[in-house]
Amino acid sequence: MERSNIMNYRIISFYGILAIIIGILVGAVDTVFGRILIAVSEYRDARPQFLLPFLAIAGLVIVFAYQKFGKNTAKGMGLVFSAGNTQEEEIPKRMIPLVVGGTWLTHLFGGSAGREGVAVQIGATVGYTFGKRLPFYDAKRIMLVTGMAAGFAGLFETPIAATFFALEVLAVGRLDYRSLFPAAIGAFVASYTSHFLGLEKFTYSLDAEIAVTFPFIMKLLVLGIIFGVVGGLFAKALTDTKKWLAEKLKNPYQRIFFMGLGLSAILLVLQMGRYSGLGTNLINASFHNEAIHGYDWILKAVLTILTLAAGFQGGEVTPLFSIGASLGYWLAPFLGLPTEFVAALGYASVFASATNTFMAPIFIGAEIFGYAYLPYFFTVVGISYVFNNNRSIYTGQLNNFI
Amino acid sequence: MERSNIMNYRIISFYGILAIIIGILVGAVDTVFGRILIAVSEYRDARPQFLLPFLAIAGLVIVFAYQKFGKNTAKGMGLVFSAGNTQEEEIPKRMIPLVVGGTWLTHLFGGSAGREGVAVQIGATVGYTFGKRLPFYDAKRIMLVTGMAAGFAGLFETPIAATFFALEVLAVGRLDYRSLFPAAIGAFVASYTSHFLGLEKFTYSLDAEIAVTFPFIMKLLVLGIIFGVVGGLFAKALTDTKKWLAEKLKNPYQRIFFMGLGLSAILLVLQMGRYSGLGTNLINASFHNEAIHGYDWILKAVLTILTLAAGFQGGEVTPLFSIGASLGYWLAPFLGLPTEFVAALGYASVFASATNTFMAPIFIGAEIFGYAYLPYFFTVVGISYVFNNNRSIYTGQLNNFI
Repeated sequence: MERSNIMNYRIISFYGILAIIIGILVGAVDTVFGRILIAVSEYRDARPQFLLPFLAIAGLVIVFAYQKFGKNTAKGMGLVFSAGNTQEEEIPKRMIPLVVGGTWLTHLFGGSAGREGVAVQIGATVGYTFGKRLPFYDAKRIMLVTGMAAGFAGLFETPIAATFFALEVLAVGRLDYRSLFPAAIGAFVASYTSHFLGLEKFTYSLDAEIAVTFPFIMKLLVLGIIFGVVGGLFAKALTDTKKWLAEKLKNPYQRIFFMGLGLSAILLVLQMGRYSGLGTNLINASFHNEAIHGYDWILKAVLTILTLAAGFQGGEVTPLFSIGASLGYWLAPFLGLPTEFVAALGYASVFASATNTFMAPIFIGAEIFGYAYLPYFFTVVGISYVFNNNRSIYTGQLNNFI
Repeated sequence: MERSNIMNYRIISFYGILAIIIGILVGAVDTVFGRILIAVSEYRDARPQFLLPFLAIAGLVIVFAYQKFGKNTAKGMGLVFSAGNTQEEEIPKRMIPLVVGGTWLTHLFGGSAGREGVAVQIGATVGYTFGKRLPFYDAKRIMLVTGMAAGFAGLFETPIAATFFALEVLAVGRLDYRSLFPAAIGAFVASYTSHFLGLEKFTYSLDAEIAVTFPFIMKLLVLGIIFGVVGGLFAKALTDTKKWLAEKLKNPYQRIFFMGLGLSAILLVLQMGRYSGLGTNLINASFHNEAIHGYDWILKAVLTILTLAAGFQGGEVTPLFSIGASLGYWLAPFLGLPTEFVAALGYASVFASATNTFMAPIFIGAEIFGYAYLPYFFTVVGISYVFNNNRSIYTGQLNNFI
């Protein structure tokens, strides 16, 4: 059998075995991070009035830690993209404790943020640390992608979505299959590891009666466009706000402190922390028919943007799930469709349009809400992906739409 | 809203509407082609002894038609790849009647061949004919991909698989999302059109009890590697045999005539045409527990390679389905797994490894055998895709694994 350049069977097998180790490691770290994060969130939800006022102080601690110990890690996901796409920068191991600690603090004191950024940075750091020691062509990038897949999968326990997320997120508009095999193994192993270690998975068994008619298809088109535009605008608003704030308040201590003060006030006034944290409260309300307001998704979006632009840590994805779900819940009656069905479509599609990914959101939909609905996720996610005006919260993505 | 280079909303919408027209046209042509092909196959199966002896004569007619009227269309799929990837060559409309007629003749007289090559060439020609008149950047390629998706979808009525097939088949190792929106619309419209016009769809509702254990995962790994190696070897053998025959018998009349004589003899001797045609007989036998022999998949592979290398028309995909299904059926008892489950995995995975595609086969599996089994198709198809040694029956594919 002739030897092909990088893909010969021995290297493939070696990557596969390494991916098992990375998956176990990353799944374990994800579990520690994720379980403590849930505990922290519950602790805060029980006494928001005592914790939310101190968000600004927590911000100062986060900035201090990054300034003192962070090296180049303050760039966060930007550093992951940079290491993946140009391979010019190092990812130091200290990225993990910094982003984990910063995120716990952000959530303990009520910032509105996600958690996938942390999981992906954990995975990327572990993968990169292995990859840079390997003598193979492109090993750093392949192991980085493997780690990212493991990180995402360990946190959300959606291994297929995680594999695609890692494969497609570094570069927009194409899916690079080179890392497929180790990334999938890393994702499945990490997912089983964190499940075994007791990290809970959000899943909802959708049971909606759907009749595919011409008006129904038109409604899916409308939903896809709305979710696409909302996600695209979220990405643009986040990028613009970050840039604008960084110019207005050049000192990062001042930026996080003054923004933190303002956020504390707003978050407390708005129903005592309803918009603090991950947004899982809005997701649960959307799927269990509790009170969701037409303005919920807007406030969650605005407060997440302000929290992250101020310099707090976490990520965007779980807030995006909650924005999409509550927007979908609110839109459903206008279109005469089952609320949980539209909430599920929004859950996946706003994630798609804000991150400029296509396959990962389809499988988020399938792995969380059931494979039987995959064709609808394919349709609405696809339209959202196309109608987001090619924007992304990850500004380090390589754009292949030229 | 700023104007992005090619993906602004007006062009997207224009492509979408054009894709509807292409979908209807291609779906209709697919239906005419497909229904007559099925009638031709049934006619032959009723009296193989009177038709199979004349395969060589049919071959002379095919070569004569291509030589006399064909211009550059004798390259078939090669021309589609060339037009898609380098954009240097024209696809003339006469490609459609030539490939359709040639395939009917091939099947009437018992050649072992497929049909997807025809459907894809129909779609590609229609798409290209629209695309070359459009003033937009890359319109020819986008409409070509749209047509290919419509062609595949109209024939097999698996629109999601068809969309991915068209997106990923032109270039190996990546999935180019640029044509996603029109390709998906073209595929769904073509699929509904041919369904509406009465083209039958092969579908089998899988109902296998699966328990995910460690030995089970190891069995999937073994299956993936076997299907990967078999598909890769099929691609290599087809390419090598084509090249070798073209050198040994430079005159295409001689090549198709003498090969046709030999094929007639072999096909008649081997159970009166069991290996003639599409191979749907082997597929049906695999899923309805009729007699499948351990050598069925080998003979089907060899005879398909000889038929196509001789210069007969059709394609490879349905024979690949039948090779995979009968190989899977035969392997199942050795692994202690349900036969129809392994046959379904083989159906999708040998297609994956021989065409070097990944997403399309996963969705072939889901759209034909049920979405509930998608994670298993993902796993086994993924392994096959990785272990095919990066070969493909489509030698015109751009290879991105450098």
